[in-house]
Amino acid sequence: MDNVWITEEFMDTRYGYKVKETLFSGKSEFQKVDVVDTVPLGKMLFNDNLVMISERDEFVYHDMITHTPLFMHPNPKNVLVIGGGDGGSLREVLRHKRVEKCTMVEIDAMVVEACKKHIPQTSLALDDARAQVIIDDGLKFVNETKEKFDVIIVDSTDPVGPATPLFGEDFYKDIYRCLSDDGIVVSQAESPFLNAEMQGKILSIMKGIFSGVYMYNYTNLTYPGGIWSFAMGSKKYHPIRDLDEKRVEDSGLEFEYYNAGIHKASFYLPSFQKRAYLDFLSDI
Amino acid sequence: MDNVWITEEFMDTRYGYKVKETLFSGKSEFQKVDVVDTVPLGKMLFNDNLVMISERDEFVYHDMITHTPLFMHPNPKNVLVIGGGDGGSLREVLRHKRVEKCTMVEIDAMVVEACKKHIPQTSLALDDARAQVIIDDGLKFVNETKEKFDVIIVDSTDPVGPATPLFGEDFYKDIYRCLSDDGIVVSQAESPFLNAEMQGKILSIMKGIFSGVYMYNYTNLTYPGGIWSFAMGSKKYHPIRDLDEKRVEDSGLEFEYYNAGIHKASFYLPSFQKRAYLDFLSDI
Repeated sequence: MDNVWITEEFMDTRYGYKVKETLFSGKSEFQKVDVVDTVPLGKMLFNDNLVMISERDEFVYHDMITHTPLFMHPNPKNVLVIGGGDGGSLREVLRHKRVEKCTMVEIDAMVVEACKKHIPQTSLALDDARAQVIIDDGLKFVNETKEKFDVIIVDSTDPVGPATPLFGEDFYKDIYRCLSDDGIVVSQAESPFLNAEMQGKILSIMKGIFSGVYMYNYTNLTYPGGIWSFAMGSKKYHPIRDLDEKRVEDSGLEFEYYNAGIHKASFYLPSFQKRAYLDFLSDI
Repeated sequence: MDNVWITEEFMDTRYGYKVKETLFSGKSEFQKVDVVDTVPLGKMLFNDNLVMISERDEFVYHDMITHTPLFMHPNPKNVLVIGGGDGGSLREVLRHKRVEKCTMVEIDAMVVEACKKHIPQTSLALDDARAQVIIDDGLKFVNETKEKFDVIIVDSTDPVGPATPLFGEDFYKDIYRCLSDDGIVVSQAESPFLNAEMQGKILSIMKGIFSGVYMYNYTNLTYPGGIWSFAMGSKKYHPIRDLDEKRVEDSGLEFEYYNAGIHKASFYLPSFQKRAYLDFLSDI
């Protein structure tokens, strides 16, 4: 293939990547699933034609969605990942020796299977002894489980298609119930430039449920809108005051993106974003 | 026009914007210059088919390249902008009441004229009484001027075409000479993801000349590579310890991106970037 491109179109903007080879194309009960090997970014996973991950930059997203809550919580033993079928979040969670078990609940078996076969970089930890992979609806799981989790990571696609209810109030009430008394939830929360309404909605829902509500930012190579955010609900711990920097150092873990400085810095938001959510955000 | 797109191609990646109308297309002695009105981002300036600014997100770049050094320096009176023909940096510099004069030296008259005519949002301050606009080579200007500047802002295009020497050692030696004894230079320094070699080069040049060398990051909607950086050389002031937060508050200025929190946070770099430039960067 000489000049083949895969293109994501989003809000009158297009992002195209030169293709080496299409490795997988399927349509599950929930969505279209494609794995494409590209020239600039290595293998990429697309759900419904939207970029989920690329090999080149997935470390940014996975570092920030996992290590931020896991270094805030003094002793995270039991962790739940909702979504995250590519396995990248689970992989990073399991690098923490304190974690005794990480349950991943992904609705779409096709995503897990495609990534297991074609993107070992993210999926390699799915068979770890401390991993439990459940193919089921995350909504149903948090509504029914009797387990308590120290950290819950909502590693969802965009709020279209199967992930829509993961941006709703009932889901967060269930999340609150199955978090331990000092638990933390972190959710993929889109871009402040392009999805301000959705960001406001998820923060206002969290504000009605959690005593601490925070937002923090990161930037990767592939998500349209440049700045992207995670929303955080915390029952007890403060993202900056309760970060144990020495524990980050002593962990012996080496990260490509995360470090104690970036952890703290990421909670300082640009003025337009800070002003938009003043009513919902706790002090940092 | 129903479905017309303007596309930037960079390192096997394409960024396309749906076009409303092309307002200006010209070819100067130095480069191709286009002003295009787009659906997602308003009017955009392209030099040699690379995005320079869009109306929707230019505030990010212009806030960070100007207010960061101007709030670090306790009393910036005389400011020089090299490049920046769209006028956005000059506009932000002149919002500081302490600034008595801002000289802008842009090599390409066509950029200035096109922006004056079609993008008043950035060019509106070019006729300010405190502004001096010189159409000339910035290299030659800093080599010949006898003036001393408190802050110099190198608001250049990418290191291809006319801007290439702005990423060289001789230029920074001249910059050092025409900075006051407590002066600060800030330079547009590309993306750590895509231009690590060039970032290392500019920092190593600064390290040989300035006692304080720093790098800070920002993200807008249009620059390929997500994270982008400014390189800073400082003769005296430290970017975090010498930031007077009260002065930011008391200035009465309202910013869309900049604030004291973002100022400090932007100097904390992702691990891969921090490790790459450890030999050149001063402590933050």
